[in-house]
Amino acid sequence: MDQSKLAELLESVANGATSPDEAAERLRTLPFEDLGFAKLDHHRHLRQGYPETVYAEGKTCAQVVEIVQRMRDHGSNVLVTRCSQEVIEAVLAAHPDAVHHVDARAITIEVTPPETLAGYIAVVCAGTSDIPIAEEAAVTAESMGNEVRRLYDIGVAGLHRILSKREEINGANVIICCAGMEGALASVTAGLVDKPIIAVPTSVGYGASFGGVAALLTMLNSCASGVTVVNIDNGFGAGVNATIINRLLNGSSS
Amino acid sequence: MDQSKLAELLESVANGATSPDEAAERLRTLPFEDLGFAKLDHHRHLRQGYPETVYAEGKTCAQVVEIVQRMRDHGSNVLVTRCSQEVIEAVLAAHPDAVHHVDARAITIEVTPPETLAGYIAVVCAGTSDIPIAEEAAVTAESMGNEVRRLYDIGVAGLHRILSKREEINGANVIICCAGMEGALASVTAGLVDKPIIAVPTSVGYGASFGGVAALLTMLNSCASGVTVVNIDNGFGAGVNATIINRLLNGSSS
Amino acid sequence: MDQSKLAELLESVANGATSPDEAAERLRTLPFEDLGFAKLDHHRHLRQGYPETVYAEGKTCAQVVEIVQRMRDHGSNVLVTRCSQEVIEAVLAAHPDAVHHVDARAITIEVTPPETLAGYIAVVCAGTSDIPIAEEAAVTAESMGNEVRRLYDIGVAGLHRILSKREEINGANVIICCAGMEGALASVTAGLVDKPIIAVPTSVGYGASFGGVAALLTMLNSCASGVTVVNIDNGFGAGVNATIINRLLNGSSS
Amino acid sequence: MDQSKLAELLESVANGATSPDEAAERLRTLPFEDLGFAKLDHHRHLRQGYPETVYAEGKTCAQVVEIVQRMRDHGSNVLVTRCSQEVIEAVLAAHPDAVHHVDARAITIEVTPPETLAGYIAVVCAGTSDIPIAEEAAVTAESMGNEVRRLYDIGVAGLHRILSKREEINGANVIICCAGMEGALASVTAGLVDKPIIAVPTSVGYGASFGGVAALLTMLNSCASGVTVVNIDNGFGAGVNATIINRLLNGSSS
Amino acid sequence: MDQSKLAELLESVANGATSPDEAAERLRTLPFEDLGFAKLDHHRHLRQGYPETVYAEGKTCAQVVEIVQRMRDHGSNVLVTRCSQEVIEAVLAAHPDAVHHVDARAITIEVTPPETLAGYIAVVCAGTSDIPIAEEAAVTAESMGNEVRRLYDIGVAGLHRILSKREEINGANVIICCAGMEGALASVTAGLVDKPIIAVPTSVGYGASFGGVAALLTMLNSCASGVTVVNIDNGFGAGVNATIINRLLNGSSS
Amino acid sequence: MDQSKLAELLESVANGATSPDEAAERLRTLPFEDLGFAKLDHHRHLRQGYPETVYAEGKTCAQVVEIVQRMRDHGSNVLVTRCSQEVIEAVLAAHPDAVHHVDARAITIEVTPPETLAGYIAVVCAGTSDIPIAEEAAVTAESMGNEVRRLYDIGVAGLHRILSKREEINGANVIICCAGMEGALASVTAGLVDKPIIAVPTSVGYGASFGGVAALLTMLNSCASGVTVVNIDNGFGAGVNATIINRLLNGSSS
Amino acid sequence: MDQSKLAELLESVANGATSPDEAAERLRTLPFEDLGFAKLDHHRHLRQGYPETVYAEGKTCAQVVEIVQRMRDHGSNVLVTRCSQEVIEAVLAAHPDAVHHVDARAITIEVTPPETLAGYIAVVCAGTSDIPIAEEAAVTAESMGNEVRRLYDIGVAGLHRILSKREEINGANVIICCAGMEGALASVTAGLVDKPIIAVPTSVGYGASFGGVAALLTMLNSCASGVTVVNIDNGFGAGVNATIINRLLNGSSS
Amino acid sequence: MDQSKLAELLESVANGATSPDEAAERLRTLPFEDLGFAKLDHHRHLRQGYPETVYAEGKTCAQVVEIVQRMRDHGSNVLVTRCSQEVIEAVLAAHPDAVHHVDARAITIEVTPPETLAGYIAVVCAGTSDIPIAEEAAVTAESMGNEVRRLYDIGVAGLHRILSKREEINGANVIICCAGMEGALASVTAGLVDKPIIAVPTSVGYGASFGGVAALLTMLNSCASGVTVVNIDNGFGAGVNATIINRLLNGSSS
Repeated sequence: MDQSKLAELLESVANGATSPDEAAERLRTLPFEDLGFAKLDHHRHLRQGYPETVYAEGKTCAQVVEIVQRMRDHGSNVLVTRCSQEVIEAVLAAHPDAVHHVDARAITIEVTPPETLAGYIAVVCAGTSDIPIAEEAAVTAESMGNEVRRLYDIGVAGLHRILSKREEINGANVIICCAGMEGALASVTAGLVDKPIIAVPTSVGYGASFGGVAALLTMLNSCASGVTVVNIDNGFGAGVNATIINRLLNGSSS
Repeated sequence: MDQSKLAELLESVANGATSPDEAAERLRTLPFEDLGFAKLDHHRHLRQGYPETVYAEGKTCAQVVEIVQRMRDHGSNVLVTRCSQEVIEAVLAAHPDAVHHVDARAITIEVTPPETLAGYIAVVCAGTSDIPIAEEAAVTAESMGNEVRRLYDIGVAGLHRILSKREEINGANVIICCAGMEGALASVTAGLVDKPIIAVPTSVGYGASFGGVAALLTMLNSCASGVTVVNIDNGFGAGVNATIINRLLNGSSS
Repeated sequence: MDQSKLAELLESVANGATSPDEAAERLRTLPFEDLGFAKLDHHRHLRQGYPETVYAEGKTCAQVVEIVQRMRDHGSNVLVTRCSQEVIEAVLAAHPDAVHHVDARAITIEVTPPETLAGYIAVVCAGTSDIPIAEEAAVTAESMGNEVRRLYDIGVAGLHRILSKREEINGANVIICCAGMEGALASVTAGLVDKPIIAVPTSVGYGASFGGVAALLTMLNSCASGVTVVNIDNGFGAGVNATIINRLLNGSSS
Repeated sequence: MDQSKLAELLESVANGATSPDEAAERLRTLPFEDLGFAKLDHHRHLRQGYPETVYAEGKTCAQVVEIVQRMRDHGSNVLVTRCSQEVIEAVLAAHPDAVHHVDARAITIEVTPPETLAGYIAVVCAGTSDIPIAEEAAVTAESMGNEVRRLYDIGVAGLHRILSKREEINGANVIICCAGMEGALASVTAGLVDKPIIAVPTSVGYGASFGGVAALLTMLNSCASGVTVVNIDNGFGAGVNATIINRLLNGSSS
Repeated sequence: MDQSKLAELLESVANGATSPDEAAERLRTLPFEDLGFAKLDHHRHLRQGYPETVYAEGKTCAQVVEIVQRMRDHGSNVLVTRCSQEVIEAVLAAHPDAVHHVDARAITIEVTPPETLAGYIAVVCAGTSDIPIAEEAAVTAESMGNEVRRLYDIGVAGLHRILSKREEINGANVIICCAGMEGALASVTAGLVDKPIIAVPTSVGYGASFGGVAALLTMLNSCASGVTVVNIDNGFGAGVNATIINRLLNGSSS
Repeated sequence: MDQSKLAELLESVANGATSPDEAAERLRTLPFEDLGFAKLDHHRHLRQGYPETVYAEGKTCAQVVEIVQRMRDHGSNVLVTRCSQEVIEAVLAAHPDAVHHVDARAITIEVTPPETLAGYIAVVCAGTSDIPIAEEAAVTAESMGNEVRRLYDIGVAGLHRILSKREEINGANVIICCAGMEGALASVTAGLVDKPIIAVPTSVGYGASFGGVAALLTMLNSCASGVTVVNIDNGFGAGVNATIINRLLNGSSS
Repeated sequence: MDQSKLAELLESVANGATSPDEAAERLRTLPFEDLGFAKLDHHRHLRQGYPETVYAEGKTCAQVVEIVQRMRDHGSNVLVTRCSQEVIEAVLAAHPDAVHHVDARAITIEVTPPETLAGYIAVVCAGTSDIPIAEEAAVTAESMGNEVRRLYDIGVAGLHRILSKREEINGANVIICCAGMEGALASVTAGLVDKPIIAVPTSVGYGASFGGVAALLTMLNSCASGVTVVNIDNGFGAGVNATIINRLLNGSSS
Repeated sequence: MDQSKLAELLESVANGATSPDEAAERLRTLPFEDLGFAKLDHHRHLRQGYPETVYAEGKTCAQVVEIVQRMRDHGSNVLVTRCSQEVIEAVLAAHPDAVHHVDARAITIEVTPPETLAGYIAVVCAGTSDIPIAEEAAVTAESMGNEVRRLYDIGVAGLHRILSKREEINGANVIICCAGMEGALASVTAGLVDKPIIAVPTSVGYGASFGGVAALLTMLNSCASGVTVVNIDNGFGAGVNATIINRLLNGSSS
């Protein structure tokens, strides 16, 4: 039952063609989503202002290009993550104004500039190999209107590096912390700051790192308060979660 | 918005106090469950005729006794599973008419006899140690109106035992197959019959049985078609699933 | 002992050459399968009317083509699953009337139309990446005479999508539910319907999805009754199990 | 080097007894924490206003009582988590004004009322067995000045329950979501709201729930954005993390 | 169809009342196990001369005593494994002639002496904590007629210990090798002898021994040929397997 | 100290140049392996008559060809396992008389015919995909002088297949049983025969077969006695172990 | 062949009763350990000066008391680890001069003072719950002649704590680092010092700490060089390994 | 605050421009790393004399070449590990004086010869497949000034091989022990020597070796004292750890 049908029903109640009881009965058995629920969802999407996101892994170039086109046709900003070289070339060929973020393996197309948020998100990572995931988080956050400060290669093996950045890290509204191997960076950071930390275990490492499991467990067991965790290599999810918090801080939640 | 409030709203549309547009707007933003959804759920419960079930593990005797009382007060049949000795004594003291199913570690209270279903469910198990789980499945199924035939201790180590019961097993509408250790019974049974088999891995075993994981993996990897699997030791779930299928066969689904 | 030998033995009893006792002794020690057991199996196969199935993974093109030819020679319908591009081309070259189901990565050859079953099987899946497994289930079910309704991309992240399809899902005789990542779709569906649900965890996801293990565990632990589970990515098995139940409902079991 | 020693050194520079170069050298090799770092940490503690927390598991009654006394002596509020019955009795005997939170298995002693934060934190949980962990989160949050709204027993098996609470959940500043077994509640909630969700897998369940691992994986793989995860059964950590975000929203971060 | 019915059928063929064709048809569809298959199994049991075995874990004292009595009534030797102190006392009270093997946590009752087998089985173990499992293997083997030589506490940490026993170990017909912790004993032994080695990982150890998994993996990955493995702590299975080989060597297999 | 040095030392004792005490001291501190231990090992190798084996995986073609040449130069028979297509071509080019066993992915070169052993080894496998491992076991056993009977594709999904081969399987001296997926074949076989069974889990399967782990666990937990297990896909090890037992039976052990 | 037999043999060579060739032959086939190997091992034990160690877990009080007595009778120092309260009482009753190390759950008896080693071993741990394992390491090291400095409760959640102890930690010859939960202490310490670090993961924690596995993985994946790892909770092993290195530094290795 | 700023501040205290109190305040709030901490780290690096190391896996040829160039520009020795063929060619083309260590898959460039250390490190490995990891350890150690003795292919399947090398192994200052499959070499070696052993599990093996996990567990559970463990395949880490100990022995620690 779409809007017009609902209007029609209520109209017929107003003009006496349908009794209130009858109308109540019909309403009660309606598929509820027809009462604007889906629309609400649509509104929520617009309100949030996120770009539409395409997870490119496992999709063909043609599929990605088509999806991107469709999003654009609806006037949406676009973020494509986990792009192979082939996907990048295909999207850039079809959309010459698309921006390729090399380290993040991501593509963005900005139709409407996102609402700018005050404050910044700090993205820290332990080693250079963690940069692709850190960049996925950073680019995601930027595409949603956040200012991002990158603090890379400050792993705990050289503790002075993170200590020297303490002020800048703690100045952020939210901290995204990417680390593979033993993943201790999140705990150490949490011991130094009092801002929310979203930890992203990365699959960087070998042997008993088990594709990121070691870092994941480290982060879940963090003895310092203030750390929550997302899936291994889920830079995108970290970026979205940081945005949700930063928007709240900017007073722009629903 | 409960029923009376909806009636009120529609009444005010009927008498012109509220315009159809205004009413549409208010309806669209209503919490939808108030439109009878919860009631539907209630209806569904009555329709299914299942006894209300209490999972006793981790509850105190007092809690179980109280929940059982409340269910009874609503006229519901009751099934209590995973009962400790203490729980059993407490429930029997409070409800002298309750039936204690020793092997199943379960208690049933039948207020209204369940609708009797034609055909039967076969519950087979591999060894005597699997009987508690098999009985949980059997008692669950019986409390929901199914006839159950028990075929116990027919593990694959003595293949003639299962072969000699082939006809009786295949005569069932649904087969529940409980096995721990290596769990091969489900595959072997599936090779002999053409009825749906619900496999229940049990935590019986030691060492590399890993609390039922070995049997679970065996059953998931069954090379014979016709096997689906529930959680380790989930005799109750198997009983419910078998009932859902048997009810369909009896034409009594919603 | 084949049929002729058995005939010969009984003939020799009839004509007095062998005493009944002697014959009893010989029969008792016979390999029993010679007494028609294999034939029984053959009968069961014919009765079930399933197409013969080839699991193509790990087989060479030549092997698959040859097996398909042999099946055809016996007048059987054929279903080939898990086909690589090479296998597809080879089979289509040899059997131009074969049907290629692109999304399912499957091929079917129908020699005799399968018995048509009343009612339908609903195949639901959470995301577009789950479609190959969902299609494997759907094509398998269709090749065995079931009507299939596909309800794709109704994952729990947008709850209104599954809510809006509740009636159509619950109208099915059996529901096949495919989901990767967190696999919550099966639980949510089970909370909405009262039909048997066969859950298929898919290997879609990354990081801590562990190739489908996360979805598998979710489904095994479903807090809603009515869910049984097959192996990760086992769309074929789900299709067969759904068929077994649907045939029972159609009164066509043995 | 404590404050007085630093003062002494600088004094000796001021009066010429120590040359600037000599002082620089001594300062460079000082244990840096003596330069106020520990104090800073102390300040941070005061600023955050958290109660001091004692994790009672694995500590003797005497140890817990002594630690609580020491905290009190410093004028700190106290939160004791994971209390056994013995610990509770011992602490209550020694501190008759302590409050025992039965479901949370926690004790609080409030010396100074915490700063009250605007807005509220929603704590939702899937089943009654998840309540101890949910309460640990709720009591932790309350002891840190948050208003908490409890929305319990709204698991996905009865979807209408969570749907009917959507407004109240989304009205929160932060949502804590506790679920065991299959843990799908976090994903479903995330699909309905746009606030940060901190998911707590609980060890509720049996068999293939593997002590909370199934729920943990489900939550890490959530296909809905907006979910971050803490350790299994870590209600305390969820409460602290929610507080960190809520304080930011109240403008009370460092 | 039991023996008398088969006799009757053949009699009726002999006297012409049933035609050979008719008889063949009836025989072909008989449940095969009625043709002596179960009896064959019985014969096999007698031929093997194994004592009947009761796995006592998880059984009540009363159950064990009753099963033992029933076995005795059939004239069988009896072996009870995994006995708790309570079970031991109950069985000894009921059967004063039973022999309690303290280290093996086993009880044997010998009604008829087993056939004595030539040669011996060597049972070696790494540390004193492995002795219960080694003894379970040894007592099992002895109860089945094997001579057993025990070579205990010859772990690889003191390599000279195993080297000094090389001749005695290699003189055995079969070697059972029990080890927990790192389980290297099996590989080292296999490098020194050319007899079949049955390796039993034990659950001795802590931490990353994971209840015997470390030893199990070590044994499965043995770089020396000649090692096969049974389940963790399965001393009984090792004893049976060694007996099967030793009987073959003694020419006493079926 | 080689032989000549030992002779020299003893000679000098005999002629009084060295005192017995001095000689005892020198002998006590000698590296013991110089006293013929390595030679003993050499003898053991000759006595066992095994071909020298090359595990080709991870070796270059050049390395394999060179090792084979060196073995040949010492007059040894050669078995090369796990050969890639490249390795096969390289070895055949260098050794035109080598025999390529296609299914086993193995090459053998027979310089001296192995001693022929009486009796036979049965190699059974569950499905056609298990044949490469089964063939590795079979070719290994044949290259060591065993007669091998192959009984392939007799998985438990069609139970009559294994039942019809019971006599032939039980007639073997040793049975090698290869199965992937759920691996139930070993248990079922063990319930039918009384010969030693060496079970080889294969990595055949997908999803929750976890590369052979499911079959491995099934086999370790076999509820039927008489099953010992080797590593996943270790057809070679099964062949060697079967040979060790068969040699004992042929009286040809050391 | 013991010493006297060797002397006898050489005597008979010296007096011509045995020819050198005959003696060579006999020596070559001797069990080599009789040539002093076991004695060498004895010497090595004395040389190392370690106390004899008893791992009390899983032993009865009587067994531990007896073993301790036997060690004492041989004049050895004694270390008993993993003592239950019962074991402690029994040993102290029998050996009133024994020292009970409460936190370490250990007992020592010093008959001869161990050789004192120069320098010290630093034992650091992350939290108070790690102290039992840290103390096991410390007491073990002390009983072997090392000076030990304890630096407890310096976990990474309060980074200034470990930073303030950097000098004292780096002044050690060897560092033992005990940590449970996320185990990041080892990495952080390794980033601050240049001495060998032996990391001991402890089983402290809950949920996804998996009994010490999280800390174990963290330590194995340490991105800082200089960390090697022992088994979970293996304080004893850490103490022994540290001693081996410290003895080398003191020039007292063999 | 760098050195000059600190000097300036102290100067201003000396000349009265800044009061001691004011200076104390400013110093207390300084970022501490500016007080020479980073410099200390730099010194530590120079003092240790390690070559700078590049982990090439996952880096492009261009990246590796550039990093190497930059290191060289700073006058540092260079070690590149885990080199692909492409990386090797690229580095050798840019740096014709670089040395390619084929088996170690490593490249070294020596600008300044490292300080030579007395004594040697023994690198032992079990099989030829372990050589790449053993060589990575050996080349790492050599590049840091250690003499290395290689003792390869002395696995426990032929025990005489390791026994014959006992003296040479025990003569080392530190022993690095690399083994895959069952990894028993470390335990056996530890039973023969009294020097520190650093065990490196390798990913050599198949099936239940689980990419080195079996060897890792074996080594962690070593029943012989004296074994510590690094990550799977971490030859580099073993080399560094051995160097740290050897430097201590050479009196060259900080």
